[in-house]
Amino acid sequence: MNTVEIINKKKYGEALSYEEIEYMIDGYVNDTIPDYQIASWLMAVYFQGLNSDETSALTDFMVKSGETIDLSFLNTTVVDKHSTGGVGDKVSLVVAPIITSLGIPFAKMSGRGLGHTGGTVDKLESIKGFHTELPLDRFKEQVQELGIALVGQSGNLVPADKKIYALRDVTGTVDSIPLIASSIMSKKIASGADAIVLDIKVGNGAFMKTEEEARKLAETMVAIGKKLNRETVAVLTNMDQPLGTEIGNGNEVLEAVKLLRDQEYSQDLYDVSVEIAAQMVYLAGKATTEEQGRKLVEEVIQNGDAYEKFVTFIEAQDGDMSSIHEIEAKQSIDVTAEKAGYISSVETQQMGEAAMLLGAGRKTKDDQIDHQVGITFHVKLGDKLEAGDKLATIHTNIEDNAAVIQKIKDAITITETPVQVNPSVIGVIH
Amino acid sequence: MNTVEIINKKKYGEALSYEEIEYMIDGYVNDTIPDYQIASWLMAVYFQGLNSDETSALTDFMVKSGETIDLSFLNTTVVDKHSTGGVGDKVSLVVAPIITSLGIPFAKMSGRGLGHTGGTVDKLESIKGFHTELPLDRFKEQVQELGIALVGQSGNLVPADKKIYALRDVTGTVDSIPLIASSIMSKKIASGADAIVLDIKVGNGAFMKTEEEARKLAETMVAIGKKLNRETVAVLTNMDQPLGTEIGNGNEVLEAVKLLRDQEYSQDLYDVSVEIAAQMVYLAGKATTEEQGRKLVEEVIQNGDAYEKFVTFIEAQDGDMSSIHEIEAKQSIDVTAEKAGYISSVETQQMGEAAMLLGAGRKTKDDQIDHQVGITFHVKLGDKLEAGDKLATIHTNIEDNAAVIQKIKDAITITETPVQVNPSVIGVIH
Repeated sequence: MNTVEIINKKKYGEALSYEEIEYMIDGYVNDTIPDYQIASWLMAVYFQGLNSDETSALTDFMVKSGETIDLSFLNTTVVDKHSTGGVGDKVSLVVAPIITSLGIPFAKMSGRGLGHTGGTVDKLESIKGFHTELPLDRFKEQVQELGIALVGQSGNLVPADKKIYALRDVTGTVDSIPLIASSIMSKKIASGADAIVLDIKVGNGAFMKTEEEARKLAETMVAIGKKLNRETVAVLTNMDQPLGTEIGNGNEVLEAVKLLRDQEYSQDLYDVSVEIAAQMVYLAGKATTEEQGRKLVEEVIQNGDAYEKFVTFIEAQDGDMSSIHEIEAKQSIDVTAEKAGYISSVETQQMGEAAMLLGAGRKTKDDQIDHQVGITFHVKLGDKLEAGDKLATIHTNIEDNAAVIQKIKDAITITETPVQVNPSVIGVIH
Repeated sequence: MNTVEIINKKKYGEALSYEEIEYMIDGYVNDTIPDYQIASWLMAVYFQGLNSDETSALTDFMVKSGETIDLSFLNTTVVDKHSTGGVGDKVSLVVAPIITSLGIPFAKMSGRGLGHTGGTVDKLESIKGFHTELPLDRFKEQVQELGIALVGQSGNLVPADKKIYALRDVTGTVDSIPLIASSIMSKKIASGADAIVLDIKVGNGAFMKTEEEARKLAETMVAIGKKLNRETVAVLTNMDQPLGTEIGNGNEVLEAVKLLRDQEYSQDLYDVSVEIAAQMVYLAGKATTEEQGRKLVEEVIQNGDAYEKFVTFIEAQDGDMSSIHEIEAKQSIDVTAEKAGYISSVETQQMGEAAMLLGAGRKTKDDQIDHQVGITFHVKLGDKLEAGDKLATIHTNIEDNAAVIQKIKDAITITETPVQVNPSVIGVIH
């Protein structure tokens, strides 16, 4: 096979064969095809796309490029979830104990990554003593015993994706739907998922700004799942404002705990969490309809089973539950409204950046996260408020917070007329 | 400036600024931007194109990336010609002495390159003793004394183009009109041309298969010329059959000599050569109209001035004119028609490949050219012939010529009905 011919074929809009895609991925991973040829090929893919056979083949070869986790010893359907990422997204913290308490194993390998806040691992590390350095054997044992375990990503899962993603990042080829879809799906499949629920965020705080793009991404991933025998459901959820009330690490764990323990919650976080969990329950075969799945999920929130599972999980990984209480940042500063009216829009991305300025997230791999800092959000889209009402409270360990405060103020628009608010769960794609 | 932002800008179809193009070219030449980023940028350029400001800027920075030849000491307009390449193209051999005999300097740096036959340098090297290893000083001296000199390309002209072309070749980004145009124009400008006549070949033996594509390329190059103050004219010429009657090296020189010395020629070669030369005469200001230019050109062919100049030129570079006579290959084999009819099409590319199989051209840089081998073509498009008439004669030094003969037979289609033939000169673009 000839690399330039394959690049040209894609450039002219032709579909590549299974073997041609294998040749490109294998060649790149094994260093027989140089990065500049993969780079021009990726740009051709950006413009010409990949059809569903090509996208599935790409996903399949990325999975095969490295190790995979075998969870078949659990003798049950392993359902994984994935979020495309948003501001204040603590859905995994809520959903994991819910599904575990319904008999569905939650065996998660989770990375740290970059972002406005840390990843799930970072958030849980705000709990004193909690750690995710489990050897693979212990990880599997714990899943079998307790139904739930979380380990920091390790091992050589999907090296092709790591290598291709690093190249996409520096060659302007990140925002290609088939490349995004195959990257996500390959990681889920390599981690041992039999079925996958995707939380596709849509809005000004998400990678996908429009419902149309989000639907396309969702459909692409659901199609990959079908071809590769992993039942996949995508839930489109709203990211036009931070999810829930907290952005940070420790404060997001606290928000999850309040939902599970006290049934105290922001409606959007509750709705999204219940929908994601219900879809997982349904795919795991623990409910015969999605509606029944929702009922089961709401039951284990209300009767405390989910919270009990959360405690068991945290303690199994040496976390001290008593360390989860009010925020411990040095200083809390309220940000107040300068005029009365209705919250009509929130620049969600800006809110995330404000949290990052406080130290809640990583801009580069070597940045340290401050688990105690973050933002509490007192208003949601559509809320009516008076001048002087609290918009947000920042929890900070830095001296000069003027830029953060200004960022938050600038990010919130208040209008005189009432505002129509979109639902948190936009749609489900099977 | 940020490389990924520039790649994305082009990817989204925006025009790049002068500074952004400079940043990319400088970065690549100076190794501060890696090849994979340039590769994805080139593919984005393939899809989104470059407008005329961008194309001129790219050309300008490529010129500035290396040395340039200063021919201003000649105190006259230096006109250069360039052909986009075709089979049997010996127009430079004919045109050079013509314009020189009309007082226009012909100071050419010419490469060897790959192709069905050698380049102009290789063709002239079929003349015993002729060489192109002139030091730059001697080259300039000879141009001043005789008006004509040819030197094998040397020095560090347009290193950016060399580097970018090598990358395009392996990344599927060769066939981009703005990239082709800026590559050609940068080389002409760096070689000291004040004005440029382009011979854009169109047809099944050319890189540009359709008149539409060829016009686009021509217009792009003429626009670059305007922006960079090099008056440029593009002549579209037909390449639906080999130009003239000879394909090879020694035999092509002989064909040029016969035109200049004996006024014996194939009409297409004569028409194309006269048109290119006339445009050069006009651009040099030696004729007030193109029509007058054509007259002057025909005059110096007829009165032998052009041939005399050719002899002076060859002898100045130690060539032995007496070595130009009939073909000296070991064997000549006629290829005959299997049926009567009219020549309706010639697969020109195939004809070129047949010549290459004989050893007339280079497939890789290290191949040796056999100057004595080639093909004489006895028929032209539209010609009427009987079964058994000669189609071509191959001049060969190899034993087994069956594949070459078959290739030539397969390349020529004979039909029963008379055939309309297109003109050799399709149009002129100013």
